[in-house]
Amino acid sequence: MTKNLVVGADVGGTNVKYVLVDSDRQCLAQDEIPTDPADPQGTIARLADTLRSRPGEGSSALAGVGLACAGIVSRANGTLGRSPNLPGWQNSDLFGALRATFGPLAFIVANDVNAALYGEFRFGAGRGCRHLVMIALGTGVGGGVIVDRQLVTGHGDGAGEIGHMTLQLDGPPCPCGNRGCLESYCGSVGLLREARRLGRDPDASPAWRAMVERRGDQLTTRDCHELAARQDRTALGLFHAAGQRLGQAVASLVNVLAPDRVIIGGGVAQAGDLLLAPCRAMVATQVMSDAGRLTPVVPAELGPFAAAMGAAALAAEAGTVP
Amino acid sequence: MTKNLVVGADVGGTNVKYVLVDSDRQCLAQDEIPTDPADPQGTIARLADTLRSRPGEGSSALAGVGLACAGIVSRANGTLGRSPNLPGWQNSDLFGALRATFGPLAFIVANDVNAALYGEFRFGAGRGCRHLVMIALGTGVGGGVIVDRQLVTGHGDGAGEIGHMTLQLDGPPCPCGNRGCLESYCGSVGLLREARRLGRDPDASPAWRAMVERRGDQLTTRDCHELAARQDRTALGLFHAAGQRLGQAVASLVNVLAPDRVIIGGGVAQAGDLLLAPCRAMVATQVMSDAGRLTPVVPAELGPFAAAMGAAALAAEAGTVP
Repeated sequence: MTKNLVVGADVGGTNVKYVLVDSDRQCLAQDEIPTDPADPQGTIARLADTLRSRPGEGSSALAGVGLACAGIVSRANGTLGRSPNLPGWQNSDLFGALRATFGPLAFIVANDVNAALYGEFRFGAGRGCRHLVMIALGTGVGGGVIVDRQLVTGHGDGAGEIGHMTLQLDGPPCPCGNRGCLESYCGSVGLLREARRLGRDPDASPAWRAMVERRGDQLTTRDCHELAARQDRTALGLFHAAGQRLGQAVASLVNVLAPDRVIIGGGVAQAGDLLLAPCRAMVATQVMSDAGRLTPVVPAELGPFAAAMGAAALAAEAGTVP
Repeated sequence: MTKNLVVGADVGGTNVKYVLVDSDRQCLAQDEIPTDPADPQGTIARLADTLRSRPGEGSSALAGVGLACAGIVSRANGTLGRSPNLPGWQNSDLFGALRATFGPLAFIVANDVNAALYGEFRFGAGRGCRHLVMIALGTGVGGGVIVDRQLVTGHGDGAGEIGHMTLQLDGPPCPCGNRGCLESYCGSVGLLREARRLGRDPDASPAWRAMVERRGDQLTTRDCHELAARQDRTALGLFHAAGQRLGQAVASLVNVLAPDRVIIGGGVAQAGDLLLAPCRAMVATQVMSDAGRLTPVVPAELGPFAAAMGAAALAAEAGTVP
């Protein structure tokens, strides 16, 4: 078997999502294994065992492995810095762990949102583009930038913190300690805080107030979508306001970087046009250049395996053994 | 004489500032000629005549010419698009005009703020950096971005409109038609509007109100610096507030791009630490990564010939004849 397969793995706090991709960019396998939160080396060894046990897929056919992790990842040194989701993996030498398990292959490590962006660039919503911005709306808000077909990592691998652009100096508190960050408006924590505040607002719709009270601590952004889908005015207003804040950030990014396209992913983006329509309206008015006002703002296409796909693509293109 | 000289020229509405640089990056000449606002070809021919008339400097020694212009410049096609300062040069074929005058040399055209950033990158405040952001605070506010030692031009050459990042949705009106853009706080038009408003504010210092009334339509940002240098509390407050807004924008840019350094240029930046100290304080609190909070925010070094120097450097590095 020729050495033409690469593995991409997205290490989350609970599971490692992985894909096995061949040189024709076909995905041969897509699955997950548990993450050992205290043992990067053990988790990587288990990934290797899982791959070896696949019928007909000896790991000898592997040319490279790409690993995506939440947090600040040094792409040059292969180390994971501060990582709230993987505290037991912090400061670990991922290149060393990969080499100890797989031998001398091409390895890359990348931040998970950067990897998801690269996946969308190679296989999804960003195919064929040269310059891209992605915003991932989850519990928090992450981001990534591609300029001239290359991921922008920046000084100290610190680029891509789009969630902490300040949209309003005296805005709502953000988990980062500041106020008015994009994350405080469009991360699920911020969105649900606003949803609960509206639940206590006598001007909110009766259906909204009843839903917030009934769901209590179990309230999710999906509950909010569902009421919006039934045209509840408070639910529509909640997403309209969040979409405008998203649009304020996207318009600023288009003004600065002029991407070919902006991709919106993450669980909160399941709201679809509830968020994207007001976002696009802001881009159409707040961007300076005629061309920029037409920048497409599109949903991500790849779903939960985007980062694993992107890590595989980065490994396939790395071509060097660190 | 060997073909080792390049010319960089920064075409303004009134004058063309030019430099002649040799292969050791020594500046042999630095001067200006008038711009013909209706005739790009004639202006370029006059530039060539001026260079030919220099003792001992036949234009036969020229290897390339770089032209910087305000407005949206297509670096690939060598055309100038919308340009408020040079309406008579709009949609003109600058590569064609350069070739008709100089023959087949290496030509580049660039936006003037991008060229100034490239000048600072090669010769000034950004020497040795890999990733840079520059903000030019003039009548308006322009910007530029370098990632991995390359200027970011973006889709349709639209990147770098840092002045139109929206800092406050209901902020002061901006000439672009929106509200709360960085330019509306930190461009001289916006800053002087706020200065005049404070001149009518009974809580402003008596010295401030007297100065605004005395200077009337002649009020300049320099008048404002001078009162601030004498510790006038209203003047200090004006620059503090503008510096905080500058810092809000810079912090967002550091979060997104993680540059090695941020360079602040333009006439308004003559206020120095009056603006830069509150800006740096915002960066130190509003940036997510530990390394990013330490990002140096520094004044530009090259002065009014920065764009000409940068255009010369871009021409020297172009090495291709379009």
